[in-house]
Amino acid sequence: MGKDGAIPTGASSPVDETGSTTMRTAETLLRILPMALCVAALVIMLKDSETNDYGSLSYSDLGAFRYLVHASGVCAGYSLLSAVVAAVPRRSTMSRAWAFFLLDQLLTYMILAAGAISTEVVYLAYKGDASITWSKTCGSFEGFCRKATASVSITFIVTLCYAGLSLISSYRLFSKYDAPVAYSPNNNGIEVTTFQA
Amino acid sequence: MGKDGAIPTGASSPVDETGSTTMRTAETLLRILPMALCVAALVIMLKDSETNDYGSLSYSDLGAFRYLVHASGVCAGYSLLSAVVAAVPRRSTMSRAWAFFLLDQLLTYMILAAGAISTEVVYLAYKGDASITWSKTCGSFEGFCRKATASVSITFIVTLCYAGLSLISSYRLFSKYDAPVAYSPNNNGIEVTTFQA
Repeated sequence: MGKDGAIPTGASSPVDETGSTTMRTAETLLRILPMALCVAALVIMLKDSETNDYGSLSYSDLGAFRYLVHASGVCAGYSLLSAVVAAVPRRSTMSRAWAFFLLDQLLTYMILAAGAISTEVVYLAYKGDASITWSKTCGSFEGFCRKATASVSITFIVTLCYAGLSLISSYRLFSKYDAPVAYSPNNNGIEVTTFQA
Repeated sequence: MGKDGAIPTGASSPVDETGSTTMRTAETLLRILPMALCVAALVIMLKDSETNDYGSLSYSDLGAFRYLVHASGVCAGYSLLSAVVAAVPRRSTMSRAWAFFLLDQLLTYMILAAGAISTEVVYLAYKGDASITWSKTCGSFEGFCRKATASVSITFIVTLCYAGLSLISSYRLFSKYDAPVAYSPNNNGIEVTTFQA
């Protein structure tokens, strides 16, 4: 809110422009980063197979790891696509903000679930479970478990990126529901400004 | 935006009041529902143990189910507390909106992860995994698996409730960053209204 009293309708102030460009760049980078990480998690998991005296084990033998591969693939594709869309300087429409918001939320939940179930399988493979006679697979397939752990760890970094993206896209969506007046940190309540229509 | 041109600073219109009351009631109910569901999931899981000719199996033998119990407990407690806070008609402050937003997000991720890893364990218990010699536990402990499935299903309904709550709390938080001018569906761009400070 400048001291000038009024900002012309339909025009953005230079501060808004700079802020918007910085935010757009940050968002684009935050979308490219999980793309790279997803591809890394995907490749590590796809190459994860071990054959030794005990037999052979591949990622595709475990449903959780297959789901991780699919989720990482979808996530990499969406990240690339959304990075391209986010990079283009264009007036953000309401439907676009809703699409970003819903898809970002969905991807966050999807990739979090993939990380969680794969963590559980890795945990069971390391520790086993005596009460239901599930053996400690990692004792015989150490290399397999190491690679799986690496892939799962990367997936959790992707989840953090997506949690951040969800925050950004919900800010972009819900701040649209009001006119863009700068938030004053001195006012903690809902601010109703005197204005002229 | 009324036809009067100006709304007095610090006062809400009657429409805002009604909308706010309806939304507060909806939010309170949406917080009480997962509380009840969390308690149900918790109780079912806590009572989930079976002893038969093959031996005995309890929820506490599986790390994933122990995590589900803890997550459900925390979720029930938070849901009750937040329902009470949300029910009190009070001017929403910025710090309160941030607290609700962050905690709702955190709880959503926590309960989703609990549901996901428990689903994986139930899946493995039903299907087993021949390649890593994990047996189909549910063949011998059918009752145990049925109860676990019920508890996990309830957890997923809780997750849906929390996804909704996350949406509400992010709306409440981020719509504060601008003055509360009603969104016009005809204008799809960012609206900069002429106003007087």
